[in-house]
Amino acid sequence: MSEKPISRFPVPELNNLPEDIRETILAVQEKSGFVPNVFLALANRPDEFRAFFAYHDALMEKEGGLSKGEREMIVVATSAHNQCIYCVVAHGAILRIREKNPQLADQIASNYRKADITPRQKAMLDFALKVSKSSYEISNDDIEDMRELGFSNDDIWDIGAISALFALSNRMANLTSMRPNDEFYLLGRIPKEKP
Amino acid sequence: MSEKPISRFPVPELNNLPEDIRETILAVQEKSGFVPNVFLALANRPDEFRAFFAYHDALMEKEGGLSKGEREMIVVATSAHNQCIYCVVAHGAILRIREKNPQLADQIASNYRKADITPRQKAMLDFALKVSKSSYEISNDDIEDMRELGFSNDDIWDIGAISALFALSNRMANLTSMRPNDEFYLLGRIPKEKP
Amino acid sequence: MSEKPISRFPVPELNNLPEDIRETILAVQEKSGFVPNVFLALANRPDEFRAFFAYHDALMEKEGGLSKGEREMIVVATSAHNQCIYCVVAHGAILRIREKNPQLADQIASNYRKADITPRQKAMLDFALKVSKSSYEISNDDIEDMRELGFSNDDIWDIGAISALFALSNRMANLTSMRPNDEFYLLGRIPKEKP
Amino acid sequence: MSEKPISRFPVPELNNLPEDIRETILAVQEKSGFVPNVFLALANRPDEFRAFFAYHDALMEKEGGLSKGEREMIVVATSAHNQCIYCVVAHGAILRIREKNPQLADQIASNYRKADITPRQKAMLDFALKVSKSSYEISNDDIEDMRELGFSNDDIWDIGAISALFALSNRMANLTSMRPNDEFYLLGRIPKEKP
Amino acid sequence: MSEKPISRFPVPELNNLPEDIRETILAVQEKSGFVPNVFLALANRPDEFRAFFAYHDALMEKEGGLSKGEREMIVVATSAHNQCIYCVVAHGAILRIREKNPQLADQIASNYRKADITPRQKAMLDFALKVSKSSYEISNDDIEDMRELGFSNDDIWDIGAISALFALSNRMANLTSMRPNDEFYLLGRIPKEKP
Amino acid sequence: MSEKPISRFPVPELNNLPEDIRETILAVQEKSGFVPNVFLALANRPDEFRAFFAYHDALMEKEGGLSKGEREMIVVATSAHNQCIYCVVAHGAILRIREKNPQLADQIASNYRKADITPRQKAMLDFALKVSKSSYEISNDDIEDMRELGFSNDDIWDIGAISALFALSNRMANLTSMRPNDEFYLLGRIPKEKP
Repeated sequence: MSEKPISRFPVPELNNLPEDIRETILAVQEKSGFVPNVFLALANRPDEFRAFFAYHDALMEKEGGLSKGEREMIVVATSAHNQCIYCVVAHGAILRIREKNPQLADQIASNYRKADITPRQKAMLDFALKVSKSSYEISNDDIEDMRELGFSNDDIWDIGAISALFALSNRMANLTSMRPNDEFYLLGRIPKEKP
Repeated sequence: MSEKPISRFPVPELNNLPEDIRETILAVQEKSGFVPNVFLALANRPDEFRAFFAYHDALMEKEGGLSKGEREMIVVATSAHNQCIYCVVAHGAILRIREKNPQLADQIASNYRKADITPRQKAMLDFALKVSKSSYEISNDDIEDMRELGFSNDDIWDIGAISALFALSNRMANLTSMRPNDEFYLLGRIPKEKP
Repeated sequence: MSEKPISRFPVPELNNLPEDIRETILAVQEKSGFVPNVFLALANRPDEFRAFFAYHDALMEKEGGLSKGEREMIVVATSAHNQCIYCVVAHGAILRIREKNPQLADQIASNYRKADITPRQKAMLDFALKVSKSSYEISNDDIEDMRELGFSNDDIWDIGAISALFALSNRMANLTSMRPNDEFYLLGRIPKEKP
Repeated sequence: MSEKPISRFPVPELNNLPEDIRETILAVQEKSGFVPNVFLALANRPDEFRAFFAYHDALMEKEGGLSKGEREMIVVATSAHNQCIYCVVAHGAILRIREKNPQLADQIASNYRKADITPRQKAMLDFALKVSKSSYEISNDDIEDMRELGFSNDDIWDIGAISALFALSNRMANLTSMRPNDEFYLLGRIPKEKP
Repeated sequence: MSEKPISRFPVPELNNLPEDIRETILAVQEKSGFVPNVFLALANRPDEFRAFFAYHDALMEKEGGLSKGEREMIVVATSAHNQCIYCVVAHGAILRIREKNPQLADQIASNYRKADITPRQKAMLDFALKVSKSSYEISNDDIEDMRELGFSNDDIWDIGAISALFALSNRMANLTSMRPNDEFYLLGRIPKEKP
Repeated sequence: MSEKPISRFPVPELNNLPEDIRETILAVQEKSGFVPNVFLALANRPDEFRAFFAYHDALMEKEGGLSKGEREMIVVATSAHNQCIYCVVAHGAILRIREKNPQLADQIASNYRKADITPRQKAMLDFALKVSKSSYEISNDDIEDMRELGFSNDDIWDIGAISALFALSNRMANLTSMRPNDEFYLLGRIPKEKP
């Protein structure tokens, strides 16, 4: 199954990559045990690679009003709307791990409105989806509604910006026909005790 | 996690059900090791229960030009379009088992166009989705195109009818807010040898 | 006009049909004076035929909080949305007869929001159309709103289930390109006294 | 049934209307046996009334490559798409009369793709619907395709212009909640011999 | 740039036009300094030309509750939705002049919800767009809401009718591929004092 | 007019910004004569600011198969689809300057299909819009079609990636309700000789 190409576009050899990009990739491999294909597919364009992961880490690795699991919920919900296999499968895995919940990613990918989330998380995803589908309709009233639910200015920016970043990311993955690594499918589905 | 209600509507006790329905349910439990919630949720209406499962078995358990795995592909693809958690999760499990492929269901649920399927299966799902989304546009040309790909009259009926049946099924599951059993999430994801 | 084929798929001879199906058809003919083409077109698949009409009768012939005329309103409104000639023409006729109103079916088929119906019937059709178009958005709030309008749990199930059944039925009629009988067009349009 | 208001906006008394408009209305009444409500509803604005009917007659009463029946097909098909009860019911009646066919209007209103029309008429309606739904996509290729089917420049303008005029007319009828006269529902449905 | 054809259909010579139409066109030229291409393109059909401009003037040149600038806002907002280059560019120019505001047209064409307009004007455009996109959903509640914002019956008719007229106009411009005059692009963008 | 807020979110003072960001902004001001508001609005988040402009420059300032003007066409066409006032107005100005054409931006913003562009540029924008609207449908056939038109692998990536980047950018501008600078509206509209 792993012989399938991971991108419709050229995928550079690790050895031919700029030093900083190779190091980034090796560090991810060290930490995760494998290299997620997004790193290899985007390495085709080193400058865009650097910008993408800088943007990604600024929004996804950040502490703040939203937990890291909630940030992944936004990714999975908007990526499912955009029908992006790579992002749903890869970030579905991360969501399962972050939330220690083997079901949430599949629920959110199918229909976040009925997933096992809190009403506040439902409102967060409603807002993220509105940014994803019809950002031109985001009004001051929407912002006010979010504030009344306890989201800070920074939280609202984060929710909208994560939705916006994956609007880009989903389109790049669909453009390149990026293939998720086999590893992602099972990650976080089985309790750690009995692997 | 399993304390969550399985339907927004009343769910009858097994003991209060008509004999034939109770037996159907017990037979499923015997075979699968658990009772899929769709049996309990629809038992609220015995006559509709009998009609639904008769319809289901007539289309899904049948031999014919389409394999059982291909029938499940149609269910997963159209149910994902209709954002039906129950059907995507439950039939995703059956698809993994039928095709002995732990990745296919997640791929098809996200974007069947890029799933690891044959061109013929891709055409089958294109047709099924057209029936699901805009059946009023199905023309003689569509039927001819399918015949040229080698689908028989009976195959074409099957593809369209499965798509139509799950148009019903997805709406019932969304109407009742039917909850997938916990068991489905992991079924078919791990090779039999090393459970 | 009646020489046109009634289905894109094979239509069996009455004599070649299983006994129970032939009897069902003859009984309908006896009662209605003609055989609606849906019986002939679906007889191509006896098991599906039995399941379909069992489902249909369980929902449409039932007594309950909704009148039989109201059930037909749901069929006409959702079938018009799905652009199903057979169901709009055939059930439009039944609606005219049930409601003794020669105009209602044409109004509901064009735009139920402005038809001569009660506000409660308008709410019923709004709910039915939501199940038909975007059942994934049906929330507990929708159910609550219906209850506040006086619809019982059973009524709500009926409305949703009729909408779901005709989601199937419309797709089968469009798949087979089912042709309405000439008789339906005029049925219920002329007061009984002066035919 | 006829007590229902024919417009959400004021409907002037015949006696208070400008002379030319009153005469137009009386002439229609003389010819048709009743005054179609569109004349009364639009008389609320005499200048717009004059412009509307001048436009209407220039396109609908014209001789040319399209028969008068075909012009009505365009009206019924686009008005059904715009869910305009008045136009579907009133022009459905005119279509039945023009084509001496009691079924065509109901078929075209439900799904023109499967109506009893010629392939050339199907292409005519495809073009009309494209003008109605997404005129910004009309390209030189569309025009060429129509010419190859034998439509002249003038025919193509007529088809597009009728679709455009009823884009206006449907919106005015929906804005005013214009009610079709009772007479329209049965017109053209019964052979002349036995009225 | 001006060598490009102004219509896909024949454009008559001024000398070959009926007297009244030639005079209308010359009067416009006298007043504006050039002949807007819509006059030449529609002159292909003298009767429709007369009806169109009679309709146009009845709604756009009128005094009333809406200012002339507000009427142009409706034209620009609905024409942008219909992706009509001619109407956006030509009426954008008129809007800039009427409102003495060089930015408003570009804002409204992109996203009227965020343009520099009053809340009342925003409500006016919401209503106009609803007529343009889904007039079948206009209900008595919509009319009531407008009345509560201070719009009179006549204002509401005007808003809806302008939206309806440009539903026609946009489709004619797209059908004919009507080209805006070069003059429109800069009109109203530069303060009079320092041209 | 310039008193209006440029973002719904906090806009930092230049003096409070990190050194590198302040320098970037001052350099832009030096070059353009004013500071485009996007620099101030995004400076609210320094890390995202750096990533965004790095991404932007990597794609927009690059030499390659697409001219800089063509890159701006992609921005204007996709931003118009996303109804982003900031991007349409600001990049419309840049497009006018790059192409030395005062009309092209308004045409592309209204309906790129009818703008004064080459067939190759039309195909480029069709592809960009497909990435913007339904990237999940991008298939190998689409890529092949582009190659046959002479676009290289790198060109295709550029087109898709610019569309993807502005999917992000449009959503950020709509989220923050970013206001275009007054300067943009007139830029590139008047020939250099007579400023």
